[in-house]
Amino acid sequence: MGVRYLIGLDFGTLSVRGVLMDADSGTAVDHHASSYRHGVMSGTLADGTPLPPGFALQDPGDYLAAAEEVLQRLGQGRQILAIGIDFTASSPLPAMADGTPMSELMPNEPHAYVKLWKHSAAQRYADEINAAGGAYLDDFGGRVSGEWLLAKAAQLADEAPEIWARSERFIEAGDWMVLRLTGCEARNLGFAAYKAQYSATDGYPSDIVPGLDARLARPLPAGSPAGALNQEWRRRTGIEGPATVAVAIIDSHAVLPAVGAVDDGTVVGALGTSAAYLFLAERRLALPVGLEGMAHGGSLPNLWLYEAGQAAFGDILAWFVRTFPRGADLAASFAAYNAEAATLAPGENHLVGLDWWNGNRVPHADSRLSGLLMGFGLDTTAAGIYRALMEALCYGTRQVLDLATAGGLDMRRVVMTSGLAEANPLLVAIMADILGRDIEVPTIPHATATGAAIHGAVAAGVVADFQDGARRFGARARRLFHPDTERSARYQRLYGAYCELSDLAPLRATMRGVGPLSSNGSSS
Amino acid sequence: MGVRYLIGLDFGTLSVRGVLMDADSGTAVDHHASSYRHGVMSGTLADGTPLPPGFALQDPGDYLAAAEEVLQRLGQGRQILAIGIDFTASSPLPAMADGTPMSELMPNEPHAYVKLWKHSAAQRYADEINAAGGAYLDDFGGRVSGEWLLAKAAQLADEAPEIWARSERFIEAGDWMVLRLTGCEARNLGFAAYKAQYSATDGYPSDIVPGLDARLARPLPAGSPAGALNQEWRRRTGIEGPATVAVAIIDSHAVLPAVGAVDDGTVVGALGTSAAYLFLAERRLALPVGLEGMAHGGSLPNLWLYEAGQAAFGDILAWFVRTFPRGADLAASFAAYNAEAATLAPGENHLVGLDWWNGNRVPHADSRLSGLLMGFGLDTTAAGIYRALMEALCYGTRQVLDLATAGGLDMRRVVMTSGLAEANPLLVAIMADILGRDIEVPTIPHATATGAAIHGAVAAGVVADFQDGARRFGARARRLFHPDTERSARYQRLYGAYCELSDLAPLRATMRGVGPLSSNGSSS
Repeated sequence: MGVRYLIGLDFGTLSVRGVLMDADSGTAVDHHASSYRHGVMSGTLADGTPLPPGFALQDPGDYLAAAEEVLQRLGQGRQILAIGIDFTASSPLPAMADGTPMSELMPNEPHAYVKLWKHSAAQRYADEINAAGGAYLDDFGGRVSGEWLLAKAAQLADEAPEIWARSERFIEAGDWMVLRLTGCEARNLGFAAYKAQYSATDGYPSDIVPGLDARLARPLPAGSPAGALNQEWRRRTGIEGPATVAVAIIDSHAVLPAVGAVDDGTVVGALGTSAAYLFLAERRLALPVGLEGMAHGGSLPNLWLYEAGQAAFGDILAWFVRTFPRGADLAASFAAYNAEAATLAPGENHLVGLDWWNGNRVPHADSRLSGLLMGFGLDTTAAGIYRALMEALCYGTRQVLDLATAGGLDMRRVVMTSGLAEANPLLVAIMADILGRDIEVPTIPHATATGAAIHGAVAAGVVADFQDGARRFGARARRLFHPDTERSARYQRLYGAYCELSDLAPLRATMRGVGPLSSNGSSS
Repeated sequence: MGVRYLIGLDFGTLSVRGVLMDADSGTAVDHHASSYRHGVMSGTLADGTPLPPGFALQDPGDYLAAAEEVLQRLGQGRQILAIGIDFTASSPLPAMADGTPMSELMPNEPHAYVKLWKHSAAQRYADEINAAGGAYLDDFGGRVSGEWLLAKAAQLADEAPEIWARSERFIEAGDWMVLRLTGCEARNLGFAAYKAQYSATDGYPSDIVPGLDARLARPLPAGSPAGALNQEWRRRTGIEGPATVAVAIIDSHAVLPAVGAVDDGTVVGALGTSAAYLFLAERRLALPVGLEGMAHGGSLPNLWLYEAGQAAFGDILAWFVRTFPRGADLAASFAAYNAEAATLAPGENHLVGLDWWNGNRVPHADSRLSGLLMGFGLDTTAAGIYRALMEALCYGTRQVLDLATAGGLDMRRVVMTSGLAEANPLLVAIMADILGRDIEVPTIPHATATGAAIHGAVAAGVVADFQDGARRFGARARRLFHPDTERSARYQRLYGAYCELSDLAPLRATMRGVGPLSSNGSSS
């Protein structure tokens, strides 16, 4: 028997990244990325049609072209057992029942395109939905985001009724990609639950947008097979073998099995430009106060996944280093600041900051809030400010974890992932001190695409379950960060000051009056 | 009749600067500066004797050597009608009745030297004096500073009783300098009132330090003659003519006649590393809440002078530019930041700051407070932060002026002086917009030394009074800054946010817990 493979495809904001895994050895043997031809369309469509403020669109044809390049490059002439796909969300598009996107039929109509996750022009529809209320909002902290599917559907139906009327589906781009690759409409429960407020008991919330129910579909749990790669795609890519395609998965949730986070009591933080925290639990709880959403089975079977996040994370450090460079390029500046910041003790810079450079998600859910630094003196140094920003990010993390704990979530294991966690050990060491907890940082390249491949493996029966998939294809090394007792004690007091600032309602009121009006930076 | 001159001597923290004025034309014809040999002694005495933390001493012999150099250079062979002297305060020293400083007799004793204005080691004595209370504190906002004479006398009597017992005088270095130049003890009412809480009706507060009364003297109003330059100093300097020496004056008050501020309803701001505001009024009021001190006749005859200040001013901008340089040197960096900051509109940077980098003097009188910036976003620029710092400084100025107005002080004329006011027109333009008032910036080099020379002219009868002196020897040009109506309106809202932050007691409580413990930055 020849070598057999899995492919994982990670559809991000600007490109798709693919990884090719040897199904028997469990190792990644190749990878390839391809950018979307039109990227994010936010000023005009490709033909020059101007777009209103807040619009962020994509052309679904770009996904097909990029996927073809990556699948061909990784899969041509190879025995492919399974393909898993993760995708940004909520990034829905109107389409016909056979998958033909409305943008193919009405290319001059902005509303015919994919509304990318960060499309923020639907906020007022979210405000209306939230004002109307409903029990279904309880699992989402009482509110839907303007970046989620319900608001985007409402905007489409209201602002482009002819497109709404003519289209037969309103579908997440990830589910649409699966439909194109297999010919089967097999939507994912994660997309449905987190972005369209679907629940297994109550279905989709009704009466939000007339006709929306008919354009959705009953979703399947993560790891379900959607179908086999169809003939057209086999011809376009040269892929051989069963090539079972799994239902798609939200990109930020795909990483879980790749970092071995498949069990009750684990929290995974993805420390990127923003930060997302995923809490895994067998038990259903009322959504802990301050957290942002919860659903069952959409990301891993049989587990509840509770979500929260920080609207800006690595973005803030990059902002500082770009604004006050200290080297020939960004990497040199980061190295210089990190080297000096590492010599400082907790509190030595006398600064405490609120990490709200892009508004605050948890606990205030208020995009009008802004960043704050307190404690400046005439001896404050640039590296002191840089370290204060790192500390503020970690206080934000601690606040999220404290809210989860207060709400009843177990937290026996803390895993931090992403390039930032791997590239900046000082940041993770500070975080361990501030949390007062051990932190694991798994070492794994292409973690998200690898996670998608594991979804494929589960769907195709290559592995018994996600636990088995994580063992065979997930991270094989991890770095452990232990908190230092003395530094932790000193941070306890400073974190107290952070919480006092965060809790001070009149401060937030003043802040809202003057700060930049940023869009809610929640990522897909 | 040959040419006749005045000399003004400005004794600062590190050097004495002298100016030579033509008494008939009223113009400055020469100037010279000389540094103190030992500068500020804060780690050890000159002989290596270690000093406790907070000590900042000077050797009075240095004043004599520097004064001799300057007086000889400017006065040798010239007809000098008058000499005026201003001096840092409170900078007292123990001495014998003939003026012999105790440091000459006991050179190894730290407490025998001048305790410079910024000597902060007497703070606990100030705390004790303030705790004891007394009606005399009403004119000083209920408290004396650890930098003032009473606290320094208490420290000397307590920590060096043998020096205290042996010494016959405790005298401000400015008054001591006059004593050495003339042989006459003629103390100034300004030193006595602002630094030793003397009042014309009640004298010095009694029972603060046993034996202090006997070591002080009944003071004279500003502009009084102290005596003629004595034979020893005529021999040392070659000065000819009557050379009437005026009583000394507090350095920060000397500038008033030089900038034409000699009338009721004028406020003068000296915008230096810190900022000092002097309000002139004919009427006696209860000290406006938030202001720091008031006295009559000590700085200009027949006028009340109310004082307030900001603990850091130009220091904060210099801190920023040093911390984040943008050019080959400080001047180039300032130019680059100013050029970009000038292109921003009020509120465009979305930032509001509290200018408490060195603690806050008005209205909180709390050195444990620290600087704050609020409103950061991912698009915040370095020049935006720089402009926010300028704006925060001007909000602080406005808060001082608003407190004075609320307390009943008239303010028909606002004058800003100092190198910073002349060198940074953008700063003054922003201040005019934030105050919503016209601001005058007089153009005059060596303003403080010129003011001292005018004190000499009044004392010697060269001019009829300070009004006459200001006309003949003061600034002849001034730049006027008018507020822009629209920008003023926009700043009104942002200043409201500044006041909200400043007034927020729980914010200050949190700040005190983490900020740097800076000494109260009040200047002499």
